[in-house]
Amino acid sequence: MTYCVAMKMDAGLVFASDTRTNAGVDNVSRADKMHVFAQGGERVIVALSAGNLSITQNALNQIERAARENPSAPNIYTVRSMYDAAALIGNTLREARNRDGEYLRAQNVDASASFIVGGQIGSEEPRLFLVYSEGNFIETTGEAPFFQNGEIKYGKPVIDRVLRRDLSIADAVKLALVSMDSTMRSNISVGLPIDVLVYPANSLKADQEFRIEEDDAYFRNLHKLWNDGLKQAFANVPAPTWKLPPS
Amino acid sequence: MTYCVAMKMDAGLVFASDTRTNAGVDNVSRADKMHVFAQGGERVIVALSAGNLSITQNALNQIERAARENPSAPNIYTVRSMYDAAALIGNTLREARNRDGEYLRAQNVDASASFIVGGQIGSEEPRLFLVYSEGNFIETTGEAPFFQNGEIKYGKPVIDRVLRRDLSIADAVKLALVSMDSTMRSNISVGLPIDVLVYPANSLKADQEFRIEEDDAYFRNLHKLWNDGLKQAFANVPAPTWKLPPS
Repeated sequence: MTYCVAMKMDAGLVFASDTRTNAGVDNVSRADKMHVFAQGGERVIVALSAGNLSITQNALNQIERAARENPSAPNIYTVRSMYDAAALIGNTLREARNRDGEYLRAQNVDASASFIVGGQIGSEEPRLFLVYSEGNFIETTGEAPFFQNGEIKYGKPVIDRVLRRDLSIADAVKLALVSMDSTMRSNISVGLPIDVLVYPANSLKADQEFRIEEDDAYFRNLHKLWNDGLKQAFANVPAPTWKLPPS
Repeated sequence: MTYCVAMKMDAGLVFASDTRTNAGVDNVSRADKMHVFAQGGERVIVALSAGNLSITQNALNQIERAARENPSAPNIYTVRSMYDAAALIGNTLREARNRDGEYLRAQNVDASASFIVGGQIGSEEPRLFLVYSEGNFIETTGEAPFFQNGEIKYGKPVIDRVLRRDLSIADAVKLALVSMDSTMRSNISVGLPIDVLVYPANSLKADQEFRIEEDDAYFRNLHKLWNDGLKQAFANVPAPTWKLPPS
């Protein structure tokens, strides 16, 4: 399983993804789920992958190869809008599924895979998309724009409560990590390390990427403070006043 | 959709279920999902239903009818252990699915349905079971015994953090409602009113059942305090100290 989340604020974009991958609980390892296509000063495109790892790796390889082997054709480093980047990733995802899907289905292997795609190209504003397994895609709208992918439910309530467009980037990183912590607490198939990428609006650079390992002091402290804070929040709610037996 | 939860503490059992039912978002109504089989002083058996409403209603009707029409045969009011009660409910669920399942599948209607079954019979200790859609069932074990059913993920993290065997019944009711509140915040298909039943161990009575409506002062206060408490818990976690742009 996987948990990925990306948020769009006025200040920029924040991406986070876990790195656990498994083919059954007896076969757990690590995989990068965060892939960055960047040209300093011109474009930053971040793709967070979820689902069948062979499909998403295949798609990402094809995207890089197409740009390398045929640089004059439209590719991830030449498309002029994040909309076109999302479409290109969706199309390539379809090709990867076309190649392998039939063989996977024959073995009852789930071939579904999807991407969160966000970033900024040139003077266009930062944008955030979710590319579905079928290759179609949607863009964030509204006051609390974010996308999650993979094991989304455990970590969603806190984002629903806290995220707003005017949240600072530092608070959005904290929010992504709290959401990740809640998910890891309830689903063992999501695990450390966590990759975080911060994209300040209009920076057009991808130089703020962090990997949070088991011994990360900040994340350990966050884990403890959030656990203590939730228990305190629970303690602060009075017990019900209906007729109940004494405890 | 549905959200049901039941918890087993040393002090007794707490059950909670929402009452929203829908056949598509344009057809939302209310249904009792909490069904009590009780004989004062002798047995209390509570069944929380989830899944296809026609299947669960059919099963519950058959269970009541069997007891009424053939009181001398083994039935829900004569079985001697909660284990047998869970088996009886599982068997009846299978019969209901056998009757309707084929016709529902032909229309691509999901015929799955399941029950949380808890209570106490005579001198046996209180027990809590989850009866799967296929009619098989499991019992709680361990230090934090609870079962959820339906839309379980949003409301699970707080239970994972708070529930312990020595939790008081009042705190368990509060925990069930906080878990319900988190679920309703993120999934519109789970909604008020909420039915709560409290079963103090060895009481062998089912006289503490509460319905929480939209205007319930306690639940409104809980909703607000929990929201405020989560935001405070979030604020109490320091922002990360890595290199980040100024907010």
